[in-house]
Amino acid sequence: MNIALLGFGTIGTGVYELINLNKGRFADNLDEEAVITKILDKDPAKKVDPSDTVCQIVTDPDLIMNDPEINIVISLLGGMDFEYKMIKAALSHGKHVVTASKAVISEYFEELVDLAVKNNVILRYEAAVGGGIPIIGSLKEELKINRIHEIKGILNGTTNFILSKMTENNADFDDTLKLAQQIGFAEADPTADIEGYDVSRKLAILSTLAYGGVIRDEDIKKRGLSDIRAIDIEMAADMGYRVKYLGHSRLEGDAVYTTVEPVLFPRESMMSNVNSEFNIVSIEGDIIGELQFYGKGAGKDATANAVVGDVLYIIKTLDEGVYPAYLPMDKSLRKSGNAYFAGRYYLRAGIKSNADLEYVMSVVEKIGGRSNIIVSDDTVFFMTGEVHADVFDELMVKLKERISDVFYARIYS
Amino acid sequence: MNIALLGFGTIGTGVYELINLNKGRFADNLDEEAVITKILDKDPAKKVDPSDTVCQIVTDPDLIMNDPEINIVISLLGGMDFEYKMIKAALSHGKHVVTASKAVISEYFEELVDLAVKNNVILRYEAAVGGGIPIIGSLKEELKINRIHEIKGILNGTTNFILSKMTENNADFDDTLKLAQQIGFAEADPTADIEGYDVSRKLAILSTLAYGGVIRDEDIKKRGLSDIRAIDIEMAADMGYRVKYLGHSRLEGDAVYTTVEPVLFPRESMMSNVNSEFNIVSIEGDIIGELQFYGKGAGKDATANAVVGDVLYIIKTLDEGVYPAYLPMDKSLRKSGNAYFAGRYYLRAGIKSNADLEYVMSVVEKIGGRSNIIVSDDTVFFMTGEVHADVFDELMVKLKERISDVFYARIYS
Repeated sequence: MNIALLGFGTIGTGVYELINLNKGRFADNLDEEAVITKILDKDPAKKVDPSDTVCQIVTDPDLIMNDPEINIVISLLGGMDFEYKMIKAALSHGKHVVTASKAVISEYFEELVDLAVKNNVILRYEAAVGGGIPIIGSLKEELKINRIHEIKGILNGTTNFILSKMTENNADFDDTLKLAQQIGFAEADPTADIEGYDVSRKLAILSTLAYGGVIRDEDIKKRGLSDIRAIDIEMAADMGYRVKYLGHSRLEGDAVYTTVEPVLFPRESMMSNVNSEFNIVSIEGDIIGELQFYGKGAGKDATANAVVGDVLYIIKTLDEGVYPAYLPMDKSLRKSGNAYFAGRYYLRAGIKSNADLEYVMSVVEKIGGRSNIIVSDDTVFFMTGEVHADVFDELMVKLKERISDVFYARIYS
Repeated sequence: MNIALLGFGTIGTGVYELINLNKGRFADNLDEEAVITKILDKDPAKKVDPSDTVCQIVTDPDLIMNDPEINIVISLLGGMDFEYKMIKAALSHGKHVVTASKAVISEYFEELVDLAVKNNVILRYEAAVGGGIPIIGSLKEELKINRIHEIKGILNGTTNFILSKMTENNADFDDTLKLAQQIGFAEADPTADIEGYDVSRKLAILSTLAYGGVIRDEDIKKRGLSDIRAIDIEMAADMGYRVKYLGHSRLEGDAVYTTVEPVLFPRESMMSNVNSEFNIVSIEGDIIGELQFYGKGAGKDATANAVVGDVLYIIKTLDEGVYPAYLPMDKSLRKSGNAYFAGRYYLRAGIKSNADLEYVMSVVEKIGGRSNIIVSDDTVFFMTGEVHADVFDELMVKLKERISDVFYARIYS
């Protein structure tokens, strides 16, 4: 069984080590040899391990697509357009595909599954959500008996690392982001992570599978994390909370409610104690109740573990000869924004004058139940009473017409 | 496909509802009908649902074992000897078996697997550990790539409920146990739960699978929970800890270290925030790092979900015709007690005199690093410095030669 690997970055190297260098137990599962024979990388100077005589680096994808000996293509390129093109090419050439790309899967989910079915090949993407957490497989398993109506989780290692470090060091967002970039926990362009696209794509994949209808990144209501400051973490802590960056979806009838946003969890809770690169995913079914899955959401070995698990699944399925049915995703779902979610809110607003302060208060006037109000020279902080997320978001749009320095987060309830 | 159910108690009723009464999505998975046709119960007056015309209650197991139409037997009898006999009989009669019995599986694991292999049938037991948590399947999956070297968890719903309620209500152990019994969260004879046999059996099953050698209940070092009092929960809380009843095993070379005992976790930790009937299981592998699985460890629907998941697995495997290999359990492992575990200890001892106090102090003299010492009229409390669990247990045996009212718990580290 010959395998091709597209992309020889961090995760690609991890996968290569597990499959070709006998790290871990991959080979113990196999009667026949399965090995990576070609690695696509744009840099022809890249080298495989000196001990490895079967594998070569290629720069031309056609050498992989047109190689009849290659049955499985592992796509770990990153980015969007080229990876999409490569996955499509591989499926079209009758090759089974394993990918970790949340971007491509969430954007072209239905098309790629259809293409896999049409070409009688298997498409797997366990590592696309939650890195090493076995959530895709577990979700599919529970769906055999349950209707899943809620999914939530800390799904992004970069923002969770930033929030953990900000809490630990009482540091500000920008400095902590720089630290994360220096040690390789954040990319040079961190937009996808800190503006919520990464979480949103993962939530889209899980929600599509769970609710049986296509949910895309663009259907998901999201709000970035970059407005947060050290003082927000501190104020939240004083009130007994931790700030976490949450992805959350809920099915009610045929309406899907979604949100990706910073949320305050009680310090003594499971979610509050998921730190650094660890992720957690919670699913809720009508029979099983709540299940939570915790593990490394990113990183070389953990993600490679999930990718290679998919490779093993494909080899086993080929041996047995019975392909699994894909879950249906043809249900028509109403994308209903974040109106389902509600709670009290923590709000910080910069104020330059008494008029600013009065403006802030007038904007939130109708909510009532304000508490913990603190006014300093240039900032006002307070908690609101309970309000729905869509209503509060609209108020915040109004607030930002005049006040630019604003951070707010709902208390999870 | 005809199925027999042995035992029509709480879980049995849940399984019956999922399979025969179309609760949940069981039937959606099947091309052919699969239905429970016979239920073994000692009470012939028990009735199936009036709408159900295919299923009957029988009191004679031979009517099931000798029924050639029955392919799958679900054993949910509880207890030990009779369930063991029934599982053996079913396997010997060429029937696939699903059970939730941690007692039978942990005691006769190798024998039953051998019997299944010999009779070319499948034996499944997902619900035996962690109720609705999909831990057995997940562990097997991770073992394809990882060497697992550590397993720990809150594995018993009854004791976790008692500890949660004691914490919530500042109540004592005996009263809370009675409450748990009244509302059906503890059995009339709670020995297996509060003396650690239930946790130990679950830990034995997980450790056997993970480490590849048979670990039995009797190999596991365990200590019951019944010495705990409200004051211990309060003292722990004052120092920032919660008491949890932990099962923990660790592989070092060919040595397996085990413990089942009350342990103090920092209040802000995942483990501390697993409450009531919820369980958590953590496994640690050389590639994947730590994974944690959280869900309902007991209860009708969640446990039935796991049982019916196993039934679906068997039906799917029969359709595909390729049986999975069982994990090997022939490795010779040294059962090495709890010597691996170490930490500071919380100790409470009843004292009737100054001589008692002096005796307590003399017993722990060599450990050093004592702190938080409180002496009242009839009790002394303190924290010790770091010490190994086997050493401390021996000291406590010595302590109990003179002092009867003693509770101690290691701080998890």
